Amino acid sequence: MNSVASEPALIGIDWGTSSLRAFLIGAGGEVLDQVSKPEGIMHVKDGDFEGSFRDLIGPWGNAAGLPVIASGMITSRNGWVETPYVSVPSGVNELAGALVPHKTSDGVTVTFVTGMTTDHDGAPDVMRGEETQIIGASALGMSDGTFVMPGTHSKWITVRSNLIDDYATFMTGEVFAAMRQHSILGTLMEEGPFQEGAFRKGCAAGLAEGSKLLHDLFGVRTLPLFGKIAGNMVEDYLSGLLIGAEIKGADVASIDGPVMIVGRDDLSDRYEIGLELAGLTSKRAPDDIVARGHFMIAQAAGLVS
Amino acid sequence: MNSVASEPALIGIDWGTSSLRAFLIGAGGEVLDQVSKPEGIMHVKDGDFEGSFRDLIGPWGNAAGLPVIASGMITSRNGWVETPYVSVPSGVNELAGALVPHKTSDGVTVTFVTGMTTDHDGAPDVMRGEETQIIGASALGMSDGTFVMPGTHSKWITVRSNLIDDYATFMTGEVFAAMRQHSILGTLMEEGPFQEGAFRKGCAAGLAEGSKLLHDLFGVRTLPLFGKIAGNMVEDYLSGLLIGAEIKGADVASIDGPVMIVGRDDLSDRYEIGLELAGLTSKRAPDDIVARGHFMIAQAAGLVS
Repeated sequence: MNSVASEPALIGIDWGTSSLRAFLIGAGGEVLDQVSKPEGIMHVKDGDFEGSFRDLIGPWGNAAGLPVIASGMITSRNGWVETPYVSVPSGVNELAGALVPHKTSDGVTVTFVTGMTTDHDGAPDVMRGEETQIIGASALGMSDGTFVMPGTHSKWITVRSNLIDDYATFMTGEVFAAMRQHSILGTLMEEGPFQEGAFRKGCAAGLAEGSKLLHDLFGVRTLPLFGKIAGNMVEDYLSGLLIGAEIKGADVASIDGPVMIVGRDDLSDRYEIGLELAGLTSKRAPDDIVARGHFMIAQAAGLVS
Repeated sequence: MNSVASEPALIGIDWGTSSLRAFLIGAGGEVLDQVSKPEGIMHVKDGDFEGSFRDLIGPWGNAAGLPVIASGMITSRNGWVETPYVSVPSGVNELAGALVPHKTSDGVTVTFVTGMTTDHDGAPDVMRGEETQIIGASALGMSDGTFVMPGTHSKWITVRSNLIDDYATFMTGEVFAAMRQHSILGTLMEEGPFQEGAFRKGCAAGLAEGSKLLHDLFGVRTLPLFGKIAGNMVEDYLSGLLIGAEIKGADVASIDGPVMIVGRDDLSDRYEIGLELAGLTSKRAPDDIVARGHFMIAQAAGLVS
């Protein structure tokens, strides 16, 4: 018996700061088609989000009239429609109950998923978009567990009984870029392929008992200065040091079971090594979990049957 | 009885990355005259250090024939004459025994003080110039104790029985500059006078048990985003967070007695607050201790009587 592709039922959009992905989703939640564009919210010309959206779904002529759900930084102050946050703990029902609809001048309703906020010792934390990915991932046999989403602002997210229980953001990617490009640490770096040994050495330094990031960063300068690592290893040593410090800071001693890594393959490789050095196992989420999250939230809101 | 100014006996030069100070020093070690210039080693045109030096001491016509001693980044790879390092523990005699003389084309001998190195868990640490300041400071009743030298690359230095016993570098100032100018943290900053309350709040976050710098940095974004600190407080909150993290990393629990702060007044004010929050008292070193260090090293080497 051949499986028959179902009819399109939903358009899901993951619209971030630097890129944008749209999914044509079938009645069973499966991805029928997808498109990626570099038009993240910072790159939309003259803030014409509506025009970008029209161009995006244009090729899906058969999608006219479908419900549209969108998540990500598109709901931030610099996006299309700013939405409030829901608080942790929240899951698919809370997100479905907080959707913000917006009608375009063409009469299409785009339904926005709000972000989610938490607070640690008076310091708020925020995410927009990751909550939708986690909803999707938690449907894939991860209704309880720890997720890491590596990137410019890495997120560590704890899910309990299908609710996002808490999370914390780490500025690992942004600190890496700033130190590589705008500090003395960049001056001794030479380009080349991934140096796993140097990455592991840096990671171990970041994970070490008694590590002190502001001090350990200076080692990224002195190790090559003293010929202890080669110029083509400096960048991966720095990457390892920061990822190790992040993993250490994520309170890994309290983590039970494998960590689910949600991210680009090259970054996921690094986190897999770092987690292993920290004594943790890991799994990887499939690439299109965000579309699964869009579908589940749309279902809970009655946008699809 | 009037004191009579002694004759000039030595020229001391503290030649760093971004600036340069020269001292005309008397036979008793007192500073008779001094000059500051912005010609740090990165700003010396065409690497003409000899020309800069000639211009520097030119106005001191009466100084012809005096011994000249120079310390700082001028002895690094990007400086005038690269010198090796001495290792910790070392003091005035070890530095005097490792001086590197260099004769200019005018026949003037400039004697360079080498830097000092240490090693923690295989990661080397380096300084060039700070050792001379500490030698000078240790003569001022600090033959044992802890020194902090705030700056781009802050140093925490332990002196035991007049020897520099060990030290550690923290990239606090450079991380501050990179995050302020080249990360999302700068986008919500507004200029204004020093906000001590915000600085203290940041400092407390950096010092807190369980603080995690890569995570805590994200608070520098979310606190103003949620209206918990005003835009004109963001920069000082960031400064406090980093200085707090540095002080915490400097293992303050092991420090006995007041910490001697050696640095610019505005930075010293911040470290005084941070040390107080960490439960430590502090003192400040006078501004010209480096000239005292030059004199003591020159004396130990027999360059002055």
